[in-house]
Amino acid sequence: MIAVDWGTTQLRAYRLDASGAVLEARERPEGILSVPAGGFPAALDAITQGWDADAGRVLMSGMVGSRQGWREVPYVDCPADLGAIAKGVRPVAWRPGSQALICPGLVCRDADGVPDVMRGEEVQVMGALALNANDGVGSILMAGTHSKHVRVEGSAIAGFATHMTGEVFAVLKAHSILGRTMAETGGPGDASVFAAGVARSGEAGGLLHHLFGVRTRTLLGDMPGSAAADYLSGLLIGHTIRAAGLAPPVLVIGAPAVAERYVAACGLLEIPARALASEQATLAGLAAIERLLRN
Amino acid sequence: MIAVDWGTTQLRAYRLDASGAVLEARERPEGILSVPAGGFPAALDAITQGWDADAGRVLMSGMVGSRQGWREVPYVDCPADLGAIAKGVRPVAWRPGSQALICPGLVCRDADGVPDVMRGEEVQVMGALALNANDGVGSILMAGTHSKHVRVEGSAIAGFATHMTGEVFAVLKAHSILGRTMAETGGPGDASVFAAGVARSGEAGGLLHHLFGVRTRTLLGDMPGSAAADYLSGLLIGHTIRAAGLAPPVLVIGAPAVAERYVAACGLLEIPARALASEQATLAGLAAIERLLRN
Repeated sequence: MIAVDWGTTQLRAYRLDASGAVLEARERPEGILSVPAGGFPAALDAITQGWDADAGRVLMSGMVGSRQGWREVPYVDCPADLGAIAKGVRPVAWRPGSQALICPGLVCRDADGVPDVMRGEEVQVMGALALNANDGVGSILMAGTHSKHVRVEGSAIAGFATHMTGEVFAVLKAHSILGRTMAETGGPGDASVFAAGVARSGEAGGLLHHLFGVRTRTLLGDMPGSAAADYLSGLLIGHTIRAAGLAPPVLVIGAPAVAERYVAACGLLEIPARALASEQATLAGLAAIERLLRN
Repeated sequence: MIAVDWGTTQLRAYRLDASGAVLEARERPEGILSVPAGGFPAALDAITQGWDADAGRVLMSGMVGSRQGWREVPYVDCPADLGAIAKGVRPVAWRPGSQALICPGLVCRDADGVPDVMRGEEVQVMGALALNANDGVGSILMAGTHSKHVRVEGSAIAGFATHMTGEVFAVLKAHSILGRTMAETGGPGDASVFAAGVARSGEAGGLLHHLFGVRTRTLLGDMPGSAAADYLSGLLIGHTIRAAGLAPPVLVIGAPAVAERYVAACGLLEIPARALASEQATLAGLAAIERLLRN
């Protein structure tokens, strides 16, 4: 089969053997907001070129199923298990004779009635379950642009809450006054400054106040400009973890460098945590859905 | 005298009579980050043209005294009263025979040792005191891009905390995914949606989670895109007020339209509050400092 993770900024395609092992992986910066001329079918043609023998069946997840994607695939309500997600899969027209399918996202409402949505992460959670990576885990935390705290009950996603951690970091760094005193480190993160940000997230004043401290601490020489980005990262991840109300131990799913920051922050807050690479989770999840659809 | 409020984006000059009454007010979009060729002296020349008889003495406040301004005037430590602020005033070279002065900003450190700064607001607080606008008031809240919760003890500013309320609003609206589903209202704010945002700020999940609800509530049709900006505004102002730990009643100092939002949010949270226009506060403060310097 061919497994495709098609997000907002990246298109990733994987040729898998019958056991789910990766024979070849390809990636292009052709996320759904930057699909080249020819649109979605041509972009899928291009990234799977030469994989014709396997192209009978393509299973896709991520924002490709959103309103801005190839086809809007309706959200499935929580609680949702593998069967409910597989039942929500919808086809798109691609090559004659092939079957191209898109996984649905999930929707839930919190106790106050406010809705929340995910697209792509539900496949990763199903992958974590298929890998038994959640054994003994109390909460799953998906680390990223939009971090998600996922509650799993049995084999189903019972509910989740999205935190705009990564996007708020990027937007403040690029467009706010905080970015002006922020010098690039050009190197690996500063763990002690990151820890100071995580610690600050538990002090009085709230996030909007703590953010201004990124500026004042560099302005008054408490912290070099090169440390400001790591301090801001610690602040935002610290606020996310504290507000999420996680049940330990925590399984962090994300790109390794990002997941590592969340695991470190959990450690600083004395919450046991371990990481699972999002790519591994996606592939295991798509393979599990594919197995269910085939049978 | 001539009173000048020179901030990041705007330059405002006022010709005052001996009693402090405004004879003429002028404003140009020539904040310290957009001073035209010729620099600060030429910009001050231009905005005070024809006011030569009064130009013997010019008193300025705001970001003009920052590192990016005309001259960096050192911060004065808190607690700081009118006398301490007047003592920190520093001259700049302008026209021969004239005296052009810049007020200092204030610096304080919170219980956790994190510094905070203000430039311009300290003059407004002194103005509020000179106008007796703080009679019976428990806290002062300066509403704006960087909102500030100010604690006054006797006639001095004892300490303060900055919240990035207005800047976070602007940056998320212009540069984040929240702006994409945000349609312009083209009209006055929606009070019920603003109130829903203020109410949401007290629910579980934290600010970074509540922010994502701005998107999901419009995405799922709970709220029209035209309401999203007012909901976001209510969320951020609500979080600011709740985190600030205000002692009621509250005096809100700000541009009238912004101050009104903070007063409304205080009302929704059952905190008695009234507003004072920031322009009136600035002028009263500069006049009070000028009187002290003259005597």
